[in-house]
Amino acid sequence: MTDVIDGPAPTPVVVPSVDVAPESQPVGWRHRHLLDVDGLTAADLDLVMRTADAMREVLARPIAKVPALRGRNVTILFYEASTRTRVSFEVAAKNLSADVVNIAAATSSVTKGESLVDTVRTVEALGAQMLVIRHAVSGAPYLAAEIFSGSVINGGDGWHAHPTQALLDLYTLRSRFPDGSLEGRKVVILGDVLHSRVARSNIWTLTAAGADLWLCGPATLLRGFEAWAAAGVGGERRFTVTSDVSAALRDADAVMALRLQQERMAAGLLPSLHEYAERFGLTAERLRLAREDCLVMHPGPMNEGVEIAPDVAAGPRSLVTEQVANGVAIRMAVLSLLTSVSLRGEG
Amino acid sequence: MTDVIDGPAPTPVVVPSVDVAPESQPVGWRHRHLLDVDGLTAADLDLVMRTADAMREVLARPIAKVPALRGRNVTILFYEASTRTRVSFEVAAKNLSADVVNIAAATSSVTKGESLVDTVRTVEALGAQMLVIRHAVSGAPYLAAEIFSGSVINGGDGWHAHPTQALLDLYTLRSRFPDGSLEGRKVVILGDVLHSRVARSNIWTLTAAGADLWLCGPATLLRGFEAWAAAGVGGERRFTVTSDVSAALRDADAVMALRLQQERMAAGLLPSLHEYAERFGLTAERLRLAREDCLVMHPGPMNEGVEIAPDVAAGPRSLVTEQVANGVAIRMAVLSLLTSVSLRGEG
Amino acid sequence: MTDVIDGPAPTPVVVPSVDVAPESQPVGWRHRHLLDVDGLTAADLDLVMRTADAMREVLARPIAKVPALRGRNVTILFYEASTRTRVSFEVAAKNLSADVVNIAAATSSVTKGESLVDTVRTVEALGAQMLVIRHAVSGAPYLAAEIFSGSVINGGDGWHAHPTQALLDLYTLRSRFPDGSLEGRKVVILGDVLHSRVARSNIWTLTAAGADLWLCGPATLLRGFEAWAAAGVGGERRFTVTSDVSAALRDADAVMALRLQQERMAAGLLPSLHEYAERFGLTAERLRLAREDCLVMHPGPMNEGVEIAPDVAAGPRSLVTEQVANGVAIRMAVLSLLTSVSLRGEG
Repeated sequence: MTDVIDGPAPTPVVVPSVDVAPESQPVGWRHRHLLDVDGLTAADLDLVMRTADAMREVLARPIAKVPALRGRNVTILFYEASTRTRVSFEVAAKNLSADVVNIAAATSSVTKGESLVDTVRTVEALGAQMLVIRHAVSGAPYLAAEIFSGSVINGGDGWHAHPTQALLDLYTLRSRFPDGSLEGRKVVILGDVLHSRVARSNIWTLTAAGADLWLCGPATLLRGFEAWAAAGVGGERRFTVTSDVSAALRDADAVMALRLQQERMAAGLLPSLHEYAERFGLTAERLRLAREDCLVMHPGPMNEGVEIAPDVAAGPRSLVTEQVANGVAIRMAVLSLLTSVSLRGEG
Repeated sequence: MTDVIDGPAPTPVVVPSVDVAPESQPVGWRHRHLLDVDGLTAADLDLVMRTADAMREVLARPIAKVPALRGRNVTILFYEASTRTRVSFEVAAKNLSADVVNIAAATSSVTKGESLVDTVRTVEALGAQMLVIRHAVSGAPYLAAEIFSGSVINGGDGWHAHPTQALLDLYTLRSRFPDGSLEGRKVVILGDVLHSRVARSNIWTLTAAGADLWLCGPATLLRGFEAWAAAGVGGERRFTVTSDVSAALRDADAVMALRLQQERMAAGLLPSLHEYAERFGLTAERLRLAREDCLVMHPGPMNEGVEIAPDVAAGPRSLVTEQVANGVAIRMAVLSLLTSVSLRGEG
Repeated sequence: MTDVIDGPAPTPVVVPSVDVAPESQPVGWRHRHLLDVDGLTAADLDLVMRTADAMREVLARPIAKVPALRGRNVTILFYEASTRTRVSFEVAAKNLSADVVNIAAATSSVTKGESLVDTVRTVEALGAQMLVIRHAVSGAPYLAAEIFSGSVINGGDGWHAHPTQALLDLYTLRSRFPDGSLEGRKVVILGDVLHSRVARSNIWTLTAAGADLWLCGPATLLRGFEAWAAAGVGGERRFTVTSDVSAALRDADAVMALRLQQERMAAGLLPSLHEYAERFGLTAERLRLAREDCLVMHPGPMNEGVEIAPDVAAGPRSLVTEQVANGVAIRMAVLSLLTSVSLRGEG
């Protein structure tokens, strides 16, 4: 099952045309929501990737705008501060001609004690047809999806999942390997795996794509992952867990450094930022263990000098900015695919 | 005078067509601003209701967008935090193709000590043609209207008035009574009446519509309303004030629970949230006193478990979500009617 | 060199047509960024002024919208709170049909410790084609311009520069003097010159326009400016520095009062607000020293009763609101001119 993504799709994939109304297209997409990546098939992932290719072409036009979501209301409801992801969804939706409503929970009446259920019902009554939600509690988008009659996109929930980030990471890696395949490629996720929804979602998609996945970090920030690795992802796909940075980086094809939250110090999980950087930071010296053309990724925002050295972050192998650009294309693809289902009344 | 709303209008009401430019339509609307509901005639109210009907039809279209306010600048200047009302105006304006500018006073240079007058002059110079203002000081929108050359809409001022809320409440009730009439219907406003601009505005419109209006709450939160009831609304229309919940709810056709601000405890007006919920909360048990098909309303956001029980809030009689949806239609109607006056240079 | 602005332009100035695509027009503008006014030639200033004239005509239309920046992404990245300037850029960009993304650094992941360089790379990857940046550190927009591949507009950096403010001030003055010329006109900048980027930028443009410029304020708030005055602006153009308010205001044609930051008291630079108002506030009495038709300006927001008396601020000579309105026209002009360069691949 490791070739699910790169093998031939069971039926020919029809990539939606960006210049045609979504509801009038035969598309092999069947999901109304995007809550996690664990339910996506190889054909689903392939369709997202190919749709993102089409969106990159749109982004390269002088006027990067198509009418796919014209008149649709996309509401972005973020209970956690974020610029990068929020703006990425906003730009993606506007490029598709949607109307965008931003609601930051910190400044909203959410703080008056309204429940998530009431808020979701309210934003729907206010006209929301697609809801992008970020929440500190794992599972919150699932609750939203139960009561929301449109499409829900998980923009990150607790430590659980960040599906669009995993999709853009997959897209970025595929576009950088000569044959577009991750089969057998050694990919390392380095850092605070324990608290990372980015890591959890990437574990699903990278193993599905056939990568030789390694997770590396301090033992305190890997708790529980050895059991998962032993059981296999989906009860099947293996990955490696280690605190030995040299072993992890040796001959790696790609390394993804994770953001270290300073709050982890207070929780006693780490001795000090300095010591963490010393032992697990992605430095130029450490990167020499990897393949010469090893790719460097980071979901951002970066703590330069902590989990990643400034010269590595800005170096020629770094794909950090490319990840951001691909994020817009991936989110355009996801919005477009989900809309095609909503408009056909399926899902 | 209790039949003002439901009686025949003196002249035939021409409802503006949503697909025709506002300035080219003969409309019986004469107000440049919407500062309060106390100056609206029966014909005015009827015109708002019928225009909102037309707007609901727009909202039911696949693309809920009409060009009525194309190129008009609607500035939403909120000195108090709000999501529901702010987003409702924003969506309403965007559905009419207006350009929307949001200014939240908490994060604006208003906090640098600029006066309201200066701020209004500034937003007008910046291009605002319609100004939606919410302010903690009663009367602030009147001051704004004196110096602003476009239309001012009161989005809530202190304890004084919240006209669009009262209009959407009236619209929601009318749509739910079989004959579209409130004549003789028992409607109860329950809770913190004293500090509620929603209650004050509803008193005008509900008595004008011929409802048998009851205000109910702790005596400390009804101060001054008995005198008003005795004098009659507009010196004429009666309503009832009581702290006896059972008497108020008995055979009621509709109950509107008001949000209880927790700050009221600190002010010594209430013993405790728990005791308030116990004595005045809208529970399923208490609701059994009302008519079987009694409607339940709340302006939101709700403190579930305080002024309203969760099962009542989410129950089959609850119109809370419908109120929110109607709010968008009412605000589209108000924006459209005011624009027709501005563009004809009247008002 | 004092006639650079008002003298005949060396070659005929072609003002861009607002209704034609910017890239297809021959325009004499050669700057990709607007970081300061010190690099603008007389012909540049003249072109901005004439383009702003065209934009004022657009603003006078019933629908103040032209397609000049259709589909262009203008990102407004403000590290300092601002309503007036932020909204002015937003409205200007929307009037030109651009898509606008607002990022307030206080609520963005910038606060997670991301560097300015990373943020600029990120907003570019997110689609920004024009970047308006305000930052508390002088020079920050220059750093942004080094790495951003589109156009950067300085929306105010530290005490250094605020170019669009100086351009709108120049435009406002020119439109008010009968012959459109500032040659020999006595213009006074009054107040906290030391901390004012508005003052620094105006020194360049006003002396370039041939004004007889005076800077006046407490000696502690003029430090360093006497040396500059002695050296001459650009090594050439003279201005006068004094703490004698009467001498400064006598026979003045225009006075620009600067905002006094209350933080200056804490720094020991001023004895008290009261004493400052007493000695340097722009009062009606003091204004009698100036010419009868002396113009009054202020960049806003005003501390009425401190640096300017309320009756002067709201008086018939006050151009404060006109400055705000002209600000939109100037920013439309700047956005349009910079876009014409970007689209032609120049600069």
